[in-house]
Amino acid sequence: MFRPLLTLTGGLIAALAVSAAQAKPLTQEDLSVAEVLRDRALESSDAYSIVESLTVEVGPRPAGSEGDRRAVAWAQEKMKALGFDRVYTEQIEVPRWNRGHAHARVVAPFPQPLVVTSLGYSVGTPEGGLTAEIVEFADVEALIKAPARKVKGKIAFINKRMERARTGEGYGPAVGGRSKGMRAAAEKGAAALLIRSVGTDSDRFAHTGMMSINGVEGPVPALALSAPDANLLEAMLKRGKPVQVQLDVHNQHLEDGPSFNVIGEITGREKPEEVMIIGAHLDSWDESTGALDDGAGVAIVMETARLIAELPQRPRRTLRVVLYGAEEIGLVGAKQYVEAHRSELDNILAVSESDFGAGKIWRFDTRLPESKFAIADQMMQLLAPLGIERGNNKSSGGPDSSVFVAQGVPAFGLYQDGSDYFDYHHTPNDTLDKVDPKILQQNVAAWVVMSFLTVEMEGDLGRIPTDN
Amino acid sequence: MFRPLLTLTGGLIAALAVSAAQAKPLTQEDLSVAEVLRDRALESSDAYSIVESLTVEVGPRPAGSEGDRRAVAWAQEKMKALGFDRVYTEQIEVPRWNRGHAHARVVAPFPQPLVVTSLGYSVGTPEGGLTAEIVEFADVEALIKAPARKVKGKIAFINKRMERARTGEGYGPAVGGRSKGMRAAAEKGAAALLIRSVGTDSDRFAHTGMMSINGVEGPVPALALSAPDANLLEAMLKRGKPVQVQLDVHNQHLEDGPSFNVIGEITGREKPEEVMIIGAHLDSWDESTGALDDGAGVAIVMETARLIAELPQRPRRTLRVVLYGAEEIGLVGAKQYVEAHRSELDNILAVSESDFGAGKIWRFDTRLPESKFAIADQMMQLLAPLGIERGNNKSSGGPDSSVFVAQGVPAFGLYQDGSDYFDYHHTPNDTLDKVDPKILQQNVAAWVVMSFLTVEMEGDLGRIPTDN
Ligand SMILES: [Zn+2]
Ligand SMILES: [Zn+2]
Repeated sequence: MFRPLLTLTGGLIAALAVSAAQAKPLTQEDLSVAEVLRDRALESSDAYSIVESLTVEVGPRPAGSEGDRRAVAWAQEKMKALGFDRVYTEQIEVPRWNRGHAHARVVAPFPQPLVVTSLGYSVGTPEGGLTAEIVEFADVEALIKAPARKVKGKIAFINKRMERARTGEGYGPAVGGRSKGMRAAAEKGAAALLIRSVGTDSDRFAHTGMMSINGVEGPVPALALSAPDANLLEAMLKRGKPVQVQLDVHNQHLEDGPSFNVIGEITGREKPEEVMIIGAHLDSWDESTGALDDGAGVAIVMETARLIAELPQRPRRTLRVVLYGAEEIGLVGAKQYVEAHRSELDNILAVSESDFGAGKIWRFDTRLPESKFAIADQMMQLLAPLGIERGNNKSSGGPDSSVFVAQGVPAFGLYQDGSDYFDYHHTPNDTLDKVDPKILQQNVAAWVVMSFLTVEMEGDLGRIPTDN
Repeated sequence: MFRPLLTLTGGLIAALAVSAAQAKPLTQEDLSVAEVLRDRALESSDAYSIVESLTVEVGPRPAGSEGDRRAVAWAQEKMKALGFDRVYTEQIEVPRWNRGHAHARVVAPFPQPLVVTSLGYSVGTPEGGLTAEIVEFADVEALIKAPARKVKGKIAFINKRMERARTGEGYGPAVGGRSKGMRAAAEKGAAALLIRSVGTDSDRFAHTGMMSINGVEGPVPALALSAPDANLLEAMLKRGKPVQVQLDVHNQHLEDGPSFNVIGEITGREKPEEVMIIGAHLDSWDESTGALDDGAGVAIVMETARLIAELPQRPRRTLRVVLYGAEEIGLVGAKQYVEAHRSELDNILAVSESDFGAGKIWRFDTRLPESKFAIADQMMQLLAPLGIERGNNKSSGGPDSSVFVAQGVPAFGLYQDGSDYFDYHHTPNDTLDKVDPKILQQNVAAWVVMSFLTVEMEGDLGRIPTDN
């Protein structure tokens, strides 16, 4: 049953272009084809070849950079070579920034260099650097609460540890220091912000990542310390003497420039205008080759589409692969996509994104009207043998997908094991060797089941409540 | 029994100052005291405090640097605070070198930055850097055999992988590229040398380390690539097109300068002139805080001496802790120590060094005359409960100890589990968090058994065959 509009706990839902016919369960024939696709995925090494190709032939591809342009060209060529019916790009506008150097060292009481990296879009230090005393905070909330006189002229150090979890749920409580710390530091007149990296490793890599900068007056340099360096600073502070740190940071803010969402389609045979969007983001941070974030996701969704394109006939609806641009700097590509396609959102049957590394998928979450749960249960028949359990109905569909979900588009979430994702996340160490080819096959197997059954089903998935 | 001189397979051994009395087995009383010391070691966290102090308060301490000077001061203060009877330094002369920057990037066919580090004492590139094609070799032997025309003007890339092993035995077959590669590259007119790091990790750290430079005419820049970057270069080369790499390296060779062996003694109550030397090296590479290499060793031998100093009476002979300077650049401190003390070598009962990280000790090796094996067997009674098995009689006693062993001084080797030692060795990632306090206690427990019984025994350990 399609869920009646009246029971939606949100605002108005536009008239649905997708048919509001009776929810039809998946047919046995569809399930059989999905099973064949699943088992082919478990034999194919093509996804690994795709992420290998992207990391070796393109490498780092931050939004708006030369690497980004090469990634866009690479993605189009690859999609054409894989047999997509239609490949095109849609231009977006992105803020651009070039990382320069970031040197930090304790100058007193125990002179030592520190391993740091600039947070995304950080300003630099004044020419010649700056030296100031460290003032430590347990978390960003403590910094926000602190009186300005305690912070003024000093380097605010947010020393918050992130907890390891399969779900990655330690990220939320820890990431505030990165996203909101600079604003709080600048408002209180701090000389700079230093944070313990938002990560779960104990390696000498600092984790970069985006922060909120819009509207901050007088932004100050914002840097992450590697975990061992945060430990070092902590140990020095415990000895009770003032700790003076020197920072020398240079970065470059450029004018906004173009980037692209790269889109490839397997065109539906019956209702080509109705689409499922499966996605990943094409951009990466600048310090790594972006194998886990999000080369693996790019490979998983491209290979999913390729397997479906190899069937003797096209699926009933269109499978659209969207490789979003500029995800890392604030879902820029996804937001501009939804804005540009606002009138067509009702044609989007469902969205899903792979953007949590290359770990084994262990849980199948959804964001569906309750009346459509039976379809997810049917999908589970083919997912369970892959070691996947049924999860909850709170899926965001992934970072970029969440922008669609906010507009009422249903979503699926194939949840990867993220136990070690934040060991590598946003560090130079996010490289191809961290991707296990066998596990990547398991990922594609699950994706192809979900994607094929969605574009092939006779019914639809309705709409979900919107945010507004 | 003291082994008769005539059976020595080496040259002349000077008259022995240590008594050539009958080999007396260890007494039950000595063994009982050693057992108490062992069990105290298993309760004490002082070794961890020592390595914490060295890494936090001093940090990097390459030979002849400001950090080295601070380490020498730190070591003397610490030994005095720990209750050593006598603390002093002996000056040595060391070649000095300052690491500058090392930037590398592929410029064609797939532009990407590479993570590299200069090998120790590498020269820099000409002003403005150099760009050349990569020519790959499986190992240093292949480079040595290659015709010069194949190498001339190119960047020789030695792509040899190191195998992981508890014994660290993969190091020998892999380290030739680092130690001998630059000489071979320079002789054939290469533009530079690049090697896959000598290490067992797959993290984006390049491993530095010393190379042979003396007498090389026209040395060329020599750099290590991290394992993921070596993989990247390998993958590009496999695609068959010439791979061009740009290097921009700056380093600084300074005049020879002073460093120091730092020495602390627990003075013997009966034969103070007879000594056992337990050691570790005080210097580290410049990119890390040297927690495993060799802060842990420094802590283990200092804490061993401290525990013995806490006994109600001094041991029969002197326990001498030598913290060698400039080990990393060629056992400089140990060589100069042996040279300066050549006439007193016969007073050295035995040597041992802790310089293989902070892993659990699993094997007890020796370098003793056969007639003294019974003493090692007695030591094993107290070592076996620590999970330690009896090993062979080929111990070098550790890198610095090997200089003494070559002169006929017996040695002990408490072999640590080195399975992950080469994950961190000579990288910025050799930091305190890699040291497990519990395992450090097991180390000290074994060291205190071996050291106490050696300085307390009534007999002696004889001499071993010399190298010459
Ligand atoms: Zn991502
Ligand atoms: Zn060492």
